[in-house]
Amino acid sequence: MTNRLKINGTRFLEDLDALREFGKQGIGVVRPAFSAPDIASRRWLAEKFQACGLTPRWDPAANLFGLPPQSGQSILIGSHSDTQPEGGWLDGAYGVILALEVARTSQESGGPPVAVVSFQDEESAFMPLSGSRYFSRYLDLDTLYDLTNAAGQRYGDEATALPEVQGVEPLDTNHFSHFLEAHIEQGPVLDLANETIGVVEAIVGSRQFEVVIEGQQNHAGTTPMSLRRDAVTGFSAFVAALEQRYTAAATPRSVWTIGQVEVHPNAPSIVPGRVSCSVQMRDGALNQLDLMCDITRDTAQEIAKARNLKISSIQNKSVEPVDMDERVINALCEAANLNAPGRWRRMPSGALHDAMNLANRMPTGMLFVPSIGGVSHAFEEDTRRDDLVAGVQVMADTVVQLT
Amino acid sequence: MTNRLKINGTRFLEDLDALREFGKQGIGVVRPAFSAPDIASRRWLAEKFQACGLTPRWDPAANLFGLPPQSGQSILIGSHSDTQPEGGWLDGAYGVILALEVARTSQESGGPPVAVVSFQDEESAFMPLSGSRYFSRYLDLDTLYDLTNAAGQRYGDEATALPEVQGVEPLDTNHFSHFLEAHIEQGPVLDLANETIGVVEAIVGSRQFEVVIEGQQNHAGTTPMSLRRDAVTGFSAFVAALEQRYTAAATPRSVWTIGQVEVHPNAPSIVPGRVSCSVQMRDGALNQLDLMCDITRDTAQEIAKARNLKISSIQNKSVEPVDMDERVINALCEAANLNAPGRWRRMPSGALHDAMNLANRMPTGMLFVPSIGGVSHAFEEDTRRDDLVAGVQVMADTVVQLT
Repeated sequence: MTNRLKINGTRFLEDLDALREFGKQGIGVVRPAFSAPDIASRRWLAEKFQACGLTPRWDPAANLFGLPPQSGQSILIGSHSDTQPEGGWLDGAYGVILALEVARTSQESGGPPVAVVSFQDEESAFMPLSGSRYFSRYLDLDTLYDLTNAAGQRYGDEATALPEVQGVEPLDTNHFSHFLEAHIEQGPVLDLANETIGVVEAIVGSRQFEVVIEGQQNHAGTTPMSLRRDAVTGFSAFVAALEQRYTAAATPRSVWTIGQVEVHPNAPSIVPGRVSCSVQMRDGALNQLDLMCDITRDTAQEIAKARNLKISSIQNKSVEPVDMDERVINALCEAANLNAPGRWRRMPSGALHDAMNLANRMPTGMLFVPSIGGVSHAFEEDTRRDDLVAGVQVMADTVVQLT
Repeated sequence: MTNRLKINGTRFLEDLDALREFGKQGIGVVRPAFSAPDIASRRWLAEKFQACGLTPRWDPAANLFGLPPQSGQSILIGSHSDTQPEGGWLDGAYGVILALEVARTSQESGGPPVAVVSFQDEESAFMPLSGSRYFSRYLDLDTLYDLTNAAGQRYGDEATALPEVQGVEPLDTNHFSHFLEAHIEQGPVLDLANETIGVVEAIVGSRQFEVVIEGQQNHAGTTPMSLRRDAVTGFSAFVAALEQRYTAAATPRSVWTIGQVEVHPNAPSIVPGRVSCSVQMRDGALNQLDLMCDITRDTAQEIAKARNLKISSIQNKSVEPVDMDERVINALCEAANLNAPGRWRRMPSGALHDAMNLANRMPTGMLFVPSIGGVSHAFEEDTRRDDLVAGVQVMADTVVQLT
C-alpha cells in the first residue's frame, strides 16, 4: 500500500460549484446530454483535466476521459455529468468531480495512476446509461448513433457535430484495472440513519409485469352485488394479497411498487370492467426476484379464480441484478471505516448506475453519500458539504487500498 | 272494481315497432330530446292519441299528454320517449306505448279514464328527468328554459320553436289521481330468475363521496418499503376494508361501486403519492344509506391512521330514495300475480325514473319487465315480446284494481 492521499476538500467543492453553473436553474440544473450546457461543461472539464496533467480523451459516444500520463493500467473513476430534464446539482456531477479530485491528488502526491470519466447520457435523453453501455460494448456504435431523443435528434449527429469527437477511435476497457463510481444515494436510508457513506454491494435488478384484470362492465345502480364481476375490487384484493405475501417473502432490501393503474371505463356510476396496472419489484438477488415473480403470477391466478375474473400477468421488463466486486467492496469498507467509523453501511443500490455496465468488464465498486430527505431527480436534491468531502477522501483511500 | 280490460298485444307491438323507426340506427335508437326524430315521434304520438279519442296536450316543457274525454281525475300512465345518445329501443318507449294501449283499451271498453304522458328529456340531454321535474314543480320554467345541452342549445329555444308548445299553459298535477310507470328493468335480476314482472317498492337513493388518499411520492428503487407512504396500497386496503364492512352491513339490495380511480403521478417507477376515487352507494332505505356513509368515513380514518396517510372523504352527491305508494304496490302485485303467478317479485329500482318526481305529488307505482342479459343504455337492449305484452296486461289490470 502506498501512502495515504490527502484530498483538498475546498478545491473539490469549488469545482463542484463551478460545474453547477452549467445549466443552472434556481437551485437545480438542466443539462441533458448534448444540450449547450452539457457540451460547454464537458469542454470545461477537459480543460480541468489538462490543468492537472490528465490528457482529455473523447470517444465516439462523446464519453470524456481524463487519462493519466503513466503507462499501464489505471483505476478508472467517474460517473456522468448530464442531468434529468429537471435535475439536481449532484446526480452524476458529484461522481465526476470527486474523480477529478482523487486523480489530481494522486498525480500531485505520486499516487497510483487514476483516470477520470464522465459518461454521456446516463439520464436517458436517448437511452438509459447509453454512453457507458457503448463503452462496455453492450451497444454497437451504429445502434448508438441511430438513437433519437424526444426532440428527434440523432445521437450520432449530435456526437459527430463536436470537433473533439470527429474521427476519434474507441477506447478499450483494458486500459483500466478497476472502475469506481461515487453517487448520491437518491434515497433516504443514510440520511435517516445519520450516516455518511454507503458501500454498494449490488445494483438491484428488477422485474416488471403488466397485470390486466378483466371483469364485467355494468350499471352501478341496477346490478346486484352478487352478480358483479368488479375489476376494481378485484384489483384491491390482488394488491392486498400481494402486500401480505411479498412482505412475508421479502428481505428488508426487496422493494415492490404498483405505480401505474388504469381503470376502464372509469366513471362513478359504472361497475368497472377492467383494471390494468404495473407491478414492479426490485432486489439485488436473482432468487429473490424469481420468488417475487412466482408470487405475482400465483396471486393473480388465485384472485381470478376466487372472484370469477380474468387476470393476465405479462412480464414486460427485466433488468438483471449486478454484484459489485468483493475485493473492491472490502477496500471501500476499509476506507469508509477509516473516515466514518460507525457511520457507514453496506447497502444495495435501488437505482441504476453506469457501474452496472462496467461491472462485467472489470472489478467495479460504488459508494454513496446521503441525499438530504432522500430527494432525487428534483431541483431540491442536496447533500451536506461535509458528507460530500468525506466521500472524496473515502474514494482516495480506496484507491490506495486497491494498489 | 270494473270489469277486466283485455289489451290488444298485437296492436301494442305494432305501435312499439313503429316508434322504434324514429331515429332507428341498426337495432338501436338515437332520439335525444328535441332532435328531429324526437320531435317527429312526438307528433306521431299526438296523432295516435287523437285516433283513440285522447286529446293531445303539450305543456311548456314539451311534455306530451294524451287526455281522456271524461271529466274528473284520471290515472296518468307513461314514461319518456327520448333516448340516450346511443339508446336501446325500449328504454322509456316501452312505458309510453304501454300507456297508450292501456288508455285505448280503457276508452274502448268503457273502463276508467286513463291519461298518457311522454315526459321530455328523461335521458338528460339537458338535465336528468328534466321534463317530469318541471311537471312536478321541482324546477321552475325559467330555470328549465335556461338549461343547455352539449351542443349549447337552450331548452327554452328548442321547446318554443314548436308551434304546439307556443303559448300553452302549464298542466296541473291535480288532473291526475295516480301515476303509473312501466319500464324495462335495466338490470339482470328478472332475466336471470326467468321472471316476467317486477313490482317496484322504492327507487333507490344514492350517496357519493370523493375520497382522496395522500401519501408520499417517491423513487420506486431507492425508497425502502418501511419508509413508504404508498397511496395505491392504501387505496387497496381501503377498498378491501370497505368491501368487508359494507357486505356485513348491507341488505341484499344495497349496492356500492368504486368506479372512478385516478393515481398520481401514475408511473411504474414512482411510489404513488396520491389516489382519488369515487365511492358511490345506493339503497332504497335512508337509514341504510346513512350507515354506509358512516362506514365510508370511519374506514377512511382508520386506514389513514394505520398507514400514516392523509385521507379526505367528501360527500359530493346525494339523491334521496323514493318509496312507491303502498296501495299502488299492492294493486300491481295483485295484477302481477293474476298474469304471472310465481314469476314476479317485489324489487327496488336501482336506476332513476320519472316516477321519482311524481311520487310526492300523487300515489305512484312502477312495474318492470326483464332486460335480456341485463343490458341497458346500449343498442343491444332487448326484452322478449311475451314479456312486453304481459307487462301491458298487468298494467291494465292494475288500473282496474285502483278504481
